[in-house]
Amino acid sequence: MEEGFFYVESLSPYVWRRYKVDKLYFEGKTKFQVVHCFYNNFLGKVLFLDHKIQSAEIDEFIYHEALVHPSLVTHPRPQKVVILGGGEGATLREVLRYQSVRQATMVDIDEELVAICQKYLPEWSAGAFDDPRSKLIITDARQFLERNEEKYDVIISDLTEPVSGGPSVYLFTKEFFELVKRRLTPEGVWVLQAGSADEKFSQFMSSLVKTLESVFPVVRPYWSFILSFSLPWGFICASLKPDPLSLSAEEIKDRLEARQVKGLRFYYPGLHHGLFALPRYLLENFKRGRLLTDDNPFIWTL
Amino acid sequence: MEEGFFYVESLSPYVWRRYKVDKLYFEGKTKFQVVHCFYNNFLGKVLFLDHKIQSAEIDEFIYHEALVHPSLVTHPRPQKVVILGGGEGATLREVLRYQSVRQATMVDIDEELVAICQKYLPEWSAGAFDDPRSKLIITDARQFLERNEEKYDVIISDLTEPVSGGPSVYLFTKEFFELVKRRLTPEGVWVLQAGSADEKFSQFMSSLVKTLESVFPVVRPYWSFILSFSLPWGFICASLKPDPLSLSAEEIKDRLEARQVKGLRFYYPGLHHGLFALPRYLLENFKRGRLLTDDNPFIWTL
Amino acid sequence: MEEGFFYVESLSPYVWRRYKVDKLYFEGKTKFQVVHCFYNNFLGKVLFLDHKIQSAEIDEFIYHEALVHPSLVTHPRPQKVVILGGGEGATLREVLRYQSVRQATMVDIDEELVAICQKYLPEWSAGAFDDPRSKLIITDARQFLERNEEKYDVIISDLTEPVSGGPSVYLFTKEFFELVKRRLTPEGVWVLQAGSADEKFSQFMSSLVKTLESVFPVVRPYWSFILSFSLPWGFICASLKPDPLSLSAEEIKDRLEARQVKGLRFYYPGLHHGLFALPRYLLENFKRGRLLTDDNPFIWTL
Amino acid sequence: MEEGFFYVESLSPYVWRRYKVDKLYFEGKTKFQVVHCFYNNFLGKVLFLDHKIQSAEIDEFIYHEALVHPSLVTHPRPQKVVILGGGEGATLREVLRYQSVRQATMVDIDEELVAICQKYLPEWSAGAFDDPRSKLIITDARQFLERNEEKYDVIISDLTEPVSGGPSVYLFTKEFFELVKRRLTPEGVWVLQAGSADEKFSQFMSSLVKTLESVFPVVRPYWSFILSFSLPWGFICASLKPDPLSLSAEEIKDRLEARQVKGLRFYYPGLHHGLFALPRYLLENFKRGRLLTDDNPFIWTL
Repeated sequence: MEEGFFYVESLSPYVWRRYKVDKLYFEGKTKFQVVHCFYNNFLGKVLFLDHKIQSAEIDEFIYHEALVHPSLVTHPRPQKVVILGGGEGATLREVLRYQSVRQATMVDIDEELVAICQKYLPEWSAGAFDDPRSKLIITDARQFLERNEEKYDVIISDLTEPVSGGPSVYLFTKEFFELVKRRLTPEGVWVLQAGSADEKFSQFMSSLVKTLESVFPVVRPYWSFILSFSLPWGFICASLKPDPLSLSAEEIKDRLEARQVKGLRFYYPGLHHGLFALPRYLLENFKRGRLLTDDNPFIWTL
Repeated sequence: MEEGFFYVESLSPYVWRRYKVDKLYFEGKTKFQVVHCFYNNFLGKVLFLDHKIQSAEIDEFIYHEALVHPSLVTHPRPQKVVILGGGEGATLREVLRYQSVRQATMVDIDEELVAICQKYLPEWSAGAFDDPRSKLIITDARQFLERNEEKYDVIISDLTEPVSGGPSVYLFTKEFFELVKRRLTPEGVWVLQAGSADEKFSQFMSSLVKTLESVFPVVRPYWSFILSFSLPWGFICASLKPDPLSLSAEEIKDRLEARQVKGLRFYYPGLHHGLFALPRYLLENFKRGRLLTDDNPFIWTL
Repeated sequence: MEEGFFYVESLSPYVWRRYKVDKLYFEGKTKFQVVHCFYNNFLGKVLFLDHKIQSAEIDEFIYHEALVHPSLVTHPRPQKVVILGGGEGATLREVLRYQSVRQATMVDIDEELVAICQKYLPEWSAGAFDDPRSKLIITDARQFLERNEEKYDVIISDLTEPVSGGPSVYLFTKEFFELVKRRLTPEGVWVLQAGSADEKFSQFMSSLVKTLESVFPVVRPYWSFILSFSLPWGFICASLKPDPLSLSAEEIKDRLEARQVKGLRFYYPGLHHGLFALPRYLLENFKRGRLLTDDNPFIWTL
Repeated sequence: MEEGFFYVESLSPYVWRRYKVDKLYFEGKTKFQVVHCFYNNFLGKVLFLDHKIQSAEIDEFIYHEALVHPSLVTHPRPQKVVILGGGEGATLREVLRYQSVRQATMVDIDEELVAICQKYLPEWSAGAFDDPRSKLIITDARQFLERNEEKYDVIISDLTEPVSGGPSVYLFTKEFFELVKRRLTPEGVWVLQAGSADEKFSQFMSSLVKTLESVFPVVRPYWSFILSFSLPWGFICASLKPDPLSLSAEEIKDRLEARQVKGLRFYYPGLHHGLFALPRYLLENFKRGRLLTDDNPFIWTL
């Protein structure tokens, strides 16, 4: 019946999505963002931050597997991993599937959000915060990397888009990427979610590719489709040396087995190279990316 | 301003998309379907049939390039092509990019729809109907293939989903696929749009894979991301002999050049194999497909 | 900005109202009804029961003043008053404006709802439950009048419409009205909210008029305009003897003064007769009302 | 089914009404206003100007009877009537019910709109434009009264609200009302629709009352409820001498009979005085009206 509570999301000033709110879990503000969390009979549990969808039960596995596995497979022996952002805990969950990983640190600025997710979306972390290998640090990601001189095998950026005044603006610049580079071990891999990969909205991804290419010797953009985002989604894997494109499906299979990775629903060896095959329009758009710096960062506007 | 005309599309009984109707072109019924055609400032011109989105100006090139090129590239020398459905004329437009094609026949049951598209969406066909190589036949696709014993190098199915009582129900069965097989030249290729490739709604695609495998020696499902459909979309290429997976990027490049194909925005040699790399969940779902027959066809329900 | 939470109300299967939920207070079920309570920047605080709007801060004074004052003014000396329903406490608030009233009893079946209203809508009761003259009894209204042989000067029905399976179905029948009659003092007045008074939806009001005329010597339908209901609203005052139409504006003024009634925003002596002036279409509709009995009660359907 | 075309109306920045568009008749712009005209299964045919509802088949009779009859009954012998605005032709239809009327002139600025209404909403005028007593003049209402020195028994203002830049801004000022006064016969009556009569939005009505009181000896505000407007609606009857409040129901009945008025569905003698009985809040608001002049007119904003 067409009545009751609904949540409306603006996809553009001319297109909206409307969700029946079958059960409201949380509506409010943390110190950093506006949070809406509810149950919808189609998407399952769903989380919105600042009115943008972040994760839905129906397909968060696609986003989180696409973010984590290409890089963890690319690194020859990932032991120390750090996740920047990732409040829901699902990125941590994917990292911990690798038995080779000895230490997985998640750095998120928003303590309240992490608590909200643990309370209402426990399926996302699935116990990851209780794993003895994991550590949660509440602080700004940039500050964390500046003050702490430890080095990591894989660094994963699972941050929200850089909206004006938001906490992520200076986490997508050349200066920041250089800091990340200094915190990687010699065969270190760095991966980040890179926003929309559709034709119209891929300026952010294009600029990230350009900026990363000014810092890292290996830069490999890839994509996947996240149903609940309504958009193809971009990711970029960069590294000091290993190249995700140099692995055969057989090697990937061997690595996943050796590291005892189980329970994947999206990623598998036969998909790996497909993720890195991009459409012509993205390649064209990449030529128009601009260098992002602390003086001139990317600010996301609808 | 939040007022005026809107078009609402039901994605599920719990999720909707709403579009500002910036300019209404057509609202009405043909003999076969309900048609809505309007302009939206985000999607551009857009066409809905029976309340399901068919094509939007913003990304119809993705759907039509994904449907046509993998197969036309796979065939060693495509000269005679037939398109089943494809009312907007964009599939025909893509086929005619191949200078090797001598004859491109489009068979659509809905004459009124074809006229509506030519009137309001001329950018889709972009003059294709005026090309001396093209021919438009208004009839039922199955009847056309039954009565006409000509053979084709490539047959393309660009049909709407088989909704109850609709004209496509018997165009997705084993019996129909056997008829198609008899109308292919020895190296003939058959490709069809196969509906949603997401996890929840891919029963149709799964059943098509199973049914095609009972008829054709080579069956290659693939997918792409159609922003305006809000879903990853499935396609299946089947053939009597040529295999799209056996082509190298270099060969594809050579074939596109030899056939003088120009103006592509989505497809290019480096993307070809990526389209055929499927996620694990689809491979799992394919195991649960069922054989579709005239006695027990697939009926699409939301 | 067109995003976030909204509440949608179905006014008919073809017309809806949508409210921005600026602050959600309560969403849930009591033993008897579905309750939604939120803040909207236009309506202020608002309460929905079973998806029908009950009260909005912007104009609850109109409904509650229209319900109470014509009858309390009509009775020559109202001392004992009982309210059936009226969970929000605003009807009680209006009754207690009369310093002549010694005892005001409110009988509501839904204890949880009364608590929700006291928690989230305290402006409605405005302290009325703390007045030493008031008493709250949680029980079914019909049972209350059956078991308790006390007599009252004014009985006020502030009940929800009789929806199928709901608690109000047998509170709008001839048998119930006869019970009410037996509980009135010799000059007793009985008033009830009677649903929509528009042309299309006034079958309920029409049937109430007919049924009351079979029980009471004086039956006076009246109406008012409740903005938040989107409809003109009907009320019926019935009595054993006093007639609201026999009072002059001067007499009303004197009675209000003598009873020290203060703080009215809608009702005043010059409006009294206007409320009872009905449009021609309602008078016509009243001819088509049917007798409501326990065997054949009115069931509200949209 | 929740899909297809809808029309959304903004009632405030926080509340909207949404209508299923069951059949679209017209969408476009005239020289003066944006016009939407469609069929909705609940409201019937409906007309929107500049995104504000003007008339719906379900209850246009209420608005038009409320606008016309109190004044035509108040005038002792109405023979010459002029209507300012009233594009749909329904005000003219009501005026022509009086057989005493010899000449009914309608002056509307928007010729295209009048034509659209005659084409799509012929039920509103119901043949009125073909009545030999009626005359349609396309021009600005103020210019019409300035250039033409004829005098009228009743002048009816059926104009849209004075939105910024719209054609009605200078038709609600003291200077205009003085012009109207000079065009009335000695017992002339002047009536105007006066916008919303609810508590929050009645500044316009309040200012009209104040401004009219500076020009006319008799000023009688009244109201009714227009379901399709979602609001109680204000009207003001002003005159050089006759007073609508001085008539008894008996006199009204006699006048309606003598003038052979038939077919009324809303207005009847017993309702007349009720229309003029206003709620306390409106009387309070009237004290805060301001004088509207050509230098300082009222501009309507949502």
